[in-house]
Amino acid sequence: MKAEIIAVGTELLLGQIVNTNAQFLSVELATLGIDVYFQTVVGDNMTRLQESIQLASQRADIILLTGGIGPTQDDLTKDALAAFLRRELHIDRLAMDHVAQFFTKRDVHMTENNRRQALVIDGSTPLPNATGLAVGNALSHEGKYYIILPGPPKEMAPMFHEQAKPWLLQHALTDEMPIYSSMLKFAGIGESLLEDRLLDLIQNQSDPTIAPYAKEGEVTVRISTKATSEQEAMIKLNALEKQIQSLLPEHMYASGDIPIEKAIVDLMTDQGKTLSAAESCTGGLLMERITSVPGSATVFLGGIVCYSNQMKEKLLNVPHDLLEGEDAPGAVSAEVAQVLAEQVRMITDTDYGLAITGVAGPAYSERKPVGLVYIAIAERDKKTEVYELNLIGNRETIRVRTVKSLLYRLWRIIVN
Amino acid sequence: MKAEIIAVGTELLLGQIVNTNAQFLSVELATLGIDVYFQTVVGDNMTRLQESIQLASQRADIILLTGGIGPTQDDLTKDALAAFLRRELHIDRLAMDHVAQFFTKRDVHMTENNRRQALVIDGSTPLPNATGLAVGNALSHEGKYYIILPGPPKEMAPMFHEQAKPWLLQHALTDEMPIYSSMLKFAGIGESLLEDRLLDLIQNQSDPTIAPYAKEGEVTVRISTKATSEQEAMIKLNALEKQIQSLLPEHMYASGDIPIEKAIVDLMTDQGKTLSAAESCTGGLLMERITSVPGSATVFLGGIVCYSNQMKEKLLNVPHDLLEGEDAPGAVSAEVAQVLAEQVRMITDTDYGLAITGVAGPAYSERKPVGLVYIAIAERDKKTEVYELNLIGNRETIRVRTVKSLLYRLWRIIVN
Repeated sequence: MKAEIIAVGTELLLGQIVNTNAQFLSVELATLGIDVYFQTVVGDNMTRLQESIQLASQRADIILLTGGIGPTQDDLTKDALAAFLRRELHIDRLAMDHVAQFFTKRDVHMTENNRRQALVIDGSTPLPNATGLAVGNALSHEGKYYIILPGPPKEMAPMFHEQAKPWLLQHALTDEMPIYSSMLKFAGIGESLLEDRLLDLIQNQSDPTIAPYAKEGEVTVRISTKATSEQEAMIKLNALEKQIQSLLPEHMYASGDIPIEKAIVDLMTDQGKTLSAAESCTGGLLMERITSVPGSATVFLGGIVCYSNQMKEKLLNVPHDLLEGEDAPGAVSAEVAQVLAEQVRMITDTDYGLAITGVAGPAYSERKPVGLVYIAIAERDKKTEVYELNLIGNRETIRVRTVKSLLYRLWRIIVN
Repeated sequence: MKAEIIAVGTELLLGQIVNTNAQFLSVELATLGIDVYFQTVVGDNMTRLQESIQLASQRADIILLTGGIGPTQDDLTKDALAAFLRRELHIDRLAMDHVAQFFTKRDVHMTENNRRQALVIDGSTPLPNATGLAVGNALSHEGKYYIILPGPPKEMAPMFHEQAKPWLLQHALTDEMPIYSSMLKFAGIGESLLEDRLLDLIQNQSDPTIAPYAKEGEVTVRISTKATSEQEAMIKLNALEKQIQSLLPEHMYASGDIPIEKAIVDLMTDQGKTLSAAESCTGGLLMERITSVPGSATVFLGGIVCYSNQMKEKLLNVPHDLLEGEDAPGAVSAEVAQVLAEQVRMITDTDYGLAITGVAGPAYSERKPVGLVYIAIAERDKKTEVYELNLIGNRETIRVRTVKSLLYRLWRIIVN
């Protein structure tokens, strides 16, 4: 099976956004054993959009279109595909209810153009949009398969996983031996070092295959095999997983595609432990990540963002002498990180108190360089651990890397 | 002038990397007044690569190829273009010196395949590579212009700026007028309603053009015009900007591509005002967004994440009677939102205190539905404003929309 991905949107051709949808879908299609030979980007233009669809339907079996299904006049994807297939469009009743409810709930008047978001091509399967308004479409026509997905990645990704992929498996991929995959997740290690540690395994791989890739400060290894049954696949995948884990026991935090904060919340829930945090330069990012995990409320009780020195003193009892004065270590110091962690743990009466203080940039602070960060983990009845980080990157990457680093160290402590 | 961008590389089709080169070049070409009608990605395959070049040369005047010019056997871009144009390749002497020097300097043996990096097409202009090894190419052929650039963005971007762009200006763009653009940013309004309000303007647009698009809870409008000078362009763009602002004064928060938190920090810095926050269901996301703005430290002093009821009582003095008991309004209520905002403002002694409490899901809480959120803004010596939100979406989108909504309301208060 060959697929082609067509991303629709003038904003892509103007370079206002990057076509991450093509990457996402390419990875997903690869795991289904589908080859992608071309990715195309075309603007919100009826003629060129139809040209692209025609070309793709000549050279691929599966054509995935992303974007151009919103409410406005320049959202033309469904119209273009319908015209190319010589089919009509109609309003899908369930999709229309979904759109209408959105406005009713908000008590906002629905403008007429929003009805376009409920349009589907005659004879197609509507793909409900769980995180947005515009309905997707899936249909087969003269031996080719067409899938229409929304442009915003937050809508496109869930719709692909929950709607389009099952549809493809049922309609287009019935003869293929299915591919089964496991995702193994690693922290505290870079992609190249991980690949080095797994080199023998990777070079001798044939079945299952091993594919490492890096993503936002974490490394994922996907192991995949074709098999006639899930049971058969799992035997092969589990054996390889054990081998990989034995080579990297201090870094593999999960079997399954979960972030490390989820692994931490799960572990601490089992252990009946609680957690709090005090953040300076990360401004809430650590707590935001932890509370992004559903069910984190039993583990994470609360915390304090002490962005100014004043708040470090007032809310977290950091001694003034540590913060200011000729010989004071200053806010960005191991001493202050330690006090912050211990104080937030005591104030909230939790088992662990986390703390972060550093220079995220772009300007230096206290004559300390951008990227110097101290992180601390205070544990009830234990000595507080403090770590110095020297990070590179811009403000955003320094903040993200700080949080990843602290979460990795916390995981190492609680996993033992 | 029309351009087409062809990115070459199987790693793009496998989703191992994102095609950021297409975005970079699209932005650059737009500022030169060149329209990009298609972006294509093709693998390291001679036949399909030549097909793509042929198609592009039929529908565009300028064809830019990125990637596939390294030393290995699957780097085929120059071979494919040469074959398509029926020209030969030769080793460029200067480029070969550059490659050889690299290895001599490092005292590393140069393998024979590295000579491929110095290949150029007969009759082309070599484009020196200041940050890498492989030489680029530029040539005109039967009225079309072809540019070959390296795949790695760190090599591609400088080569475009320093070599390809001057070559294009000299050879292809002698008659073109450059495009100038402004970005206008809107909050508290959806794309469809915004378009509805600007419908007359959009339908009658010719010069400057108006293009609205939505992105992560904000709406951006790009207005663009071709002009012989920046001054001439600015007169036209500023006039249109005033017209648009007069139609949506309560929503346009910036002229320039900045998020609303930056507009807020800038305004409050000018006003000499300070800010604090108390967050429950958003778990730190609001404070993380505000502190993502460089220089936010003068405005934002700190805040509290009161994820558990216990912490709402302990850290923010919420009366127990409001939180628990038969007739208590509960943690997710207008009453508690108000106390949180007023208390955090008083504790931190800031001009504004923000508060969020709600049900982000996936499970309901206190028998209240997922998506019910209360936000509050307490201002020194003013009555506290409390708003009820009824949001749809998953946990992440509810949290993001809550923060966007609160930031919009804060902006409305301080802008007046």
